[in-house]
Amino acid sequence: MGNFQDFAGKSVLITGGMGFIGSNLARSLADLGARATVVDSLIPEYGGNLFNLKGYESRIHINIADIRDEFSMAYLVQGQDYLFNLAGQTSHLDSMKNPFVDLDINCRSQLFILEACRKHNPAIRIVYASTRQIYGRPDFLPVHEGHLLHPTDVNGINKMAGEWYHILYSNVYGIQTCALRLTNTYGPRMRVKDARQTFLGIWIRNLTQGKPIEVWGDGLQVRDFNYVDDVTDAMLTAALSEQSNGQIYNLGSPERVNLKDLAALMIKVHGKGEYGVVPFPDDRKPIDIGDYYADYSKIRAALNWNPRLSLEEGLSRTLQYYYQFIHEYL
Amino acid sequence: MGNFQDFAGKSVLITGGMGFIGSNLARSLADLGARATVVDSLIPEYGGNLFNLKGYESRIHINIADIRDEFSMAYLVQGQDYLFNLAGQTSHLDSMKNPFVDLDINCRSQLFILEACRKHNPAIRIVYASTRQIYGRPDFLPVHEGHLLHPTDVNGINKMAGEWYHILYSNVYGIQTCALRLTNTYGPRMRVKDARQTFLGIWIRNLTQGKPIEVWGDGLQVRDFNYVDDVTDAMLTAALSEQSNGQIYNLGSPERVNLKDLAALMIKVHGKGEYGVVPFPDDRKPIDIGDYYADYSKIRAALNWNPRLSLEEGLSRTLQYYYQFIHEYL
Repeated sequence: MGNFQDFAGKSVLITGGMGFIGSNLARSLADLGARATVVDSLIPEYGGNLFNLKGYESRIHINIADIRDEFSMAYLVQGQDYLFNLAGQTSHLDSMKNPFVDLDINCRSQLFILEACRKHNPAIRIVYASTRQIYGRPDFLPVHEGHLLHPTDVNGINKMAGEWYHILYSNVYGIQTCALRLTNTYGPRMRVKDARQTFLGIWIRNLTQGKPIEVWGDGLQVRDFNYVDDVTDAMLTAALSEQSNGQIYNLGSPERVNLKDLAALMIKVHGKGEYGVVPFPDDRKPIDIGDYYADYSKIRAALNWNPRLSLEEGLSRTLQYYYQFIHEYL
Repeated sequence: MGNFQDFAGKSVLITGGMGFIGSNLARSLADLGARATVVDSLIPEYGGNLFNLKGYESRIHINIADIRDEFSMAYLVQGQDYLFNLAGQTSHLDSMKNPFVDLDINCRSQLFILEACRKHNPAIRIVYASTRQIYGRPDFLPVHEGHLLHPTDVNGINKMAGEWYHILYSNVYGIQTCALRLTNTYGPRMRVKDARQTFLGIWIRNLTQGKPIEVWGDGLQVRDFNYVDDVTDAMLTAALSEQSNGQIYNLGSPERVNLKDLAALMIKVHGKGEYGVVPFPDDRKPIDIGDYYADYSKIRAALNWNPRLSLEEGLSRTLQYYYQFIHEYL
C-alpha cells in the first residue's frame, strides 16, 4: 500500500462524505492531516448522517450540497488534489420506482463532475466508488473484472455508465481516475434504518433491538463482505498509486459465507438472537443475483491491497458501535 | 425469417423514422401494409431528412417530435403493436463536445420511452437499434456478444446504458424487447453531408462530386458492412420472433474488408475516382477502435438472419441512388 502520510496537507473532496463509507474515509483523511471537504445532500432516504462526523466538525469542512447542483460542484472540485467520488443513489428498489432520479445522480451528475474536473482541475486524482451490482447474476465464480456486465436493475445500469465515464475521462483526457467495484461493505456508520444501503444494516438494527433477523430467499446465497476500514484503505491506496490510473478493480474477501451462516455468525458474536428464512419479497425476486463473490487478485497484485479484518472481528466492531450509537441511526 | 406479411394492418411506431435506417424501415413497413408512424425531430445535424419518405407521405404518418419531448412520446407509444426504436444521437465527436445532449437522447429518453410502454402499452414489442460502438477496441476478433463492453466515447457509454434499459425492461417487467448491435450500415438515405453518421457517407459524396476519398489512419483497419435492407430485414425478423425477447444480437457480414480495399472497391464500382491515406485527425485518434468485425452466428442460428447483398452490389445500389438524389442530401 502507499504511504498514507502523503495525504498530509492535501486538499481532498469527498462526495457522499457524510454517508457510510464517505464519513469513515473523511475521518481517516482528517486524521492523516488532509484538508478534507465533504459534500453531502443529507437526503433523508440516503446514507448521509450528521452524526457520522461527530467530533470531527472542526477538522472537516462540511459543505451541504447535492451533487446534482452543478454550479456548486463546478466550484467545489477546484483546488482539490483528490476527489473521492462516493455520492450516489444506491437503492435498487428506489431506482426501479424512480429511474430518473437515479439517472440524474448516477449518470448526469457524474458526467458533470468529470466535465468540471476536465475544465477546471485536470490534475485532480479521482477514485470512484463503483459496485459489484453492475455484474448482475454471475456467469461464473469468483467474478473477476473480465466478467460481462449484465445489471439487473436501473441502478446497476446507471452505475455501469457512471463508472465508464470515469474510465473514459482517463483514456481520452488523461484525468487520473480509478474505479473500485465494491462488494458488500459493512461497519460503523452504515445506514441501519432500512435495507436501502445493505441488508446488513437492518439485520444489525433488529439484533440490537432483540428482534429476529430475516434471511431472504433460501439463505444459501453466498456473498463476500468487506469491513469499511478495508474499503477506505483500498480507496486511499488507489488514490496514491500511479498504476491505478484508468483501472477498474474488484474489492473482495477471502471469506465467503452464505446468508444463513452469516446470520448465525452475527448471532454468535452478539451472544443472542435468532433468525428466520423467509421467501423473497415480490419486488426483490427479479433483481436477486444468486451467489456472488469476487476475484480481487487484480488489486492485490497491482496495489498490494488485502482485506485485513476477519468477518467475525468486523462484525464484532460493528455491533460494538451500534450498541453505543444505535439511537443516532433510527 | 418471419413472415413479414404479419405486419399488414399492424400499428408501428418508428423513432428516428425519417433518418437513414428508420426511413428505409418505414417504407418497407408501409409496403407491407402496416400503419406506420414515424417520429423524428429533424435536427439538422442528425440523420432525419424529409426527402427520405418522398412518395410515402400519404401512407406513412409523419409526426415531427423530439424523443426528449416526454409528453408526446407517452402519447405516441399508446396503441402501437411494434416500436422500432432507432432515434439517437450517433455522432461520437458530438457526444464528446456535448455529453449532456447525448445523455438526454440516448439514456433519459430511452428510459422514458420504456417507462411509457410499461405504464401505457406493456404488450408492445420493441426492437432497439444498438451499436458495435459499445464494444470499443476489440479484445479479440470476430467479436461475439460475450465480448466485454468497454466503449471509447460518451456516445458508446450512453448507448450501452440505453441498450441495457431495454433488456432490463424485458427481464423485470416482461416488455418484449430485443437489441440489435449494428455494425457499419450503408445504403440509400444515409447522411452524406458529413461524417457524423458514417465515414461512408462522405466518401460517397466526394466520389459523386469527383473529389478524392480520404482514408484515415493507415487504411488497414478491417471492418464489416451491412447494406441497409439487410439491417431492416433483421429488425423486422426480430420484431416477429418470440425467441428474440430480451436478447442482444450482433449484426455482421461474411465480407470483411480494410478501408483501403473498400475505397478501391468503391472506386471500381463508380468507374473512376481516387483515394488518399491521411493520418487520423487529432480528435478522432483517441476514439479509434482499430479492427472490428462481428461474429453474428447468434442471430443466424436464432432467427435465421443472413445478410443477402454482397458489398459490391450494395455499393452499386447506393451509388445509383446518390447519382440521382445527391442534391437532396447536401
